[in-house]
Amino acid sequence: MSKKIVAFQGEAGAYSEAAAYHYFGAETQTLPCKSFDELFAAVSEGRATHGIAPIENSLAGSIHRNYDLLLRNELHIIGEYHLRVSHCLMALPGVALEDVQRVYSHPQALAQCENSLNEMGLMPVVANDTAGSARALKEHNDTTSAALASKLAAQVYGLNILEENMEDDPANYTRFLALAPQPEKKQADDYKTSIAFTLISKPGILFNALSIFALREIDLTKIESRPQQGKPWEYLFHIDFIGHVDEKPVERALKHLEEIAPFIRVSGSYPTEEREW
Amino acid sequence: MSKKIVAFQGEAGAYSEAAAYHYFGAETQTLPCKSFDELFAAVSEGRATHGIAPIENSLAGSIHRNYDLLLRNELHIIGEYHLRVSHCLMALPGVALEDVQRVYSHPQALAQCENSLNEMGLMPVVANDTAGSARALKEHNDTTSAALASKLAAQVYGLNILEENMEDDPANYTRFLALAPQPEKKQADDYKTSIAFTLISKPGILFNALSIFALREIDLTKIESRPQQGKPWEYLFHIDFIGHVDEKPVERALKHLEEIAPFIRVSGSYPTEEREW
Repeated sequence: MSKKIVAFQGEAGAYSEAAAYHYFGAETQTLPCKSFDELFAAVSEGRATHGIAPIENSLAGSIHRNYDLLLRNELHIIGEYHLRVSHCLMALPGVALEDVQRVYSHPQALAQCENSLNEMGLMPVVANDTAGSARALKEHNDTTSAALASKLAAQVYGLNILEENMEDDPANYTRFLALAPQPEKKQADDYKTSIAFTLISKPGILFNALSIFALREIDLTKIESRPQQGKPWEYLFHIDFIGHVDEKPVERALKHLEEIAPFIRVSGSYPTEEREW
Repeated sequence: MSKKIVAFQGEAGAYSEAAAYHYFGAETQTLPCKSFDELFAAVSEGRATHGIAPIENSLAGSIHRNYDLLLRNELHIIGEYHLRVSHCLMALPGVALEDVQRVYSHPQALAQCENSLNEMGLMPVVANDTAGSARALKEHNDTTSAALASKLAAQVYGLNILEENMEDDPANYTRFLALAPQPEKKQADDYKTSIAFTLISKPGILFNALSIFALREIDLTKIESRPQQGKPWEYLFHIDFIGHVDEKPVERALKHLEEIAPFIRVSGSYPTEEREW
């Protein structure tokens, strides 16, 4: 089997790259992409064999952009991975906490570490992203600043971790989806399937749609409705349920759903990762 | 009736402040807050009479932090407002587009205007927020830079709008909730109610919960499930439905829901704003 090349959004040391190594293995070759669009394009066009994309964060919610890209591209979800987002405070080797005047990072990371930074008397300064802040310390040989980024970023840029777990709320997890141009063969026991579908808005229609799964004892693990731009009478739903599309009850349920849903898209069936949160 | 003081997150000229003026009227006094937590605290503790908080964006998704704060505070939702997020390119008076070398804004705004900025050959530079970028131009009398922010920010800081609608995707709306310490008296015809509840995870339980509404012909307009941190067997649901808690069918449905939901919280009944998207 040829080597895996995994596309991720961000630069070397990004949380997405950490997720890529965790899910696909430490020997994986990674491909940094500037945007989520570029990530999906890289996998669709064969520059990467796989992709890894964040789909929801326990604090920030679902990442609709990636739900949209799943619909616009022909990729398949082949797995999921829950990454504990733990922000590390890092600086150049030899720099002590007392030397640090400024802390660079993405605004969201700075906000998630607000209390820690206040208590330590450190001044937050916004930057484009977490890994980029780490890289900049190295590039500018900056001995009076620190960055908030992943442990991986410290390794990549040869920085020293001054403090781990800087985030104020430890319940900070991001769920990533592993993507591939083709579905994988069923091999595990416990599968989850992600689908998207539309329903014409009328009273009880969502109940009808869910009864299709309930009557076949198919358990939902996620449901999210989204208003459709320009189509206020039509709703888009993202649903995850336990089961594989190759299983008879699931096959029948999807056939049944077709009777009432103008649009259905199966994004993939993939082994379930046990949530710790 | 005494003057309204409306708390919002961000600084003068933020999109949230624009939403406050649109919803509560141009004569409203506004109170800038550093964080969403501070916003909720300002209304709870009486420093503001009302609050306005973004709850979901058409591109970015739901803002879970504010869903969480709704659960942690005793505030009531009294209304909703859909703001079209339109990023304006602005600079000091007398500065022409040709003079502009850099464009400051929040990373999300810069990302949403990526194509426009590229086509115009403008270099993006990250800043803490959109309104703050506009303020900084004024403060530093910076005649070689521009900012991406709301039309209101241009007014507040006396800047000149060089270009409107810089965003690449025009379907960019944020839904705001208007908050108050007390519910308001029913006066409109069409009401929506927002509730949150938990369910013990077992097959078909969500179907059972939704049947409570479907059997009474109560129409859902939003549903979102969220895994509960530390409670993998329990799900939290956010649901919006058409109707007012004072209406008999709604009252009965909520009573019925109590039979299967360990936790229910009614966040408020409020007049429905017709979505344009």
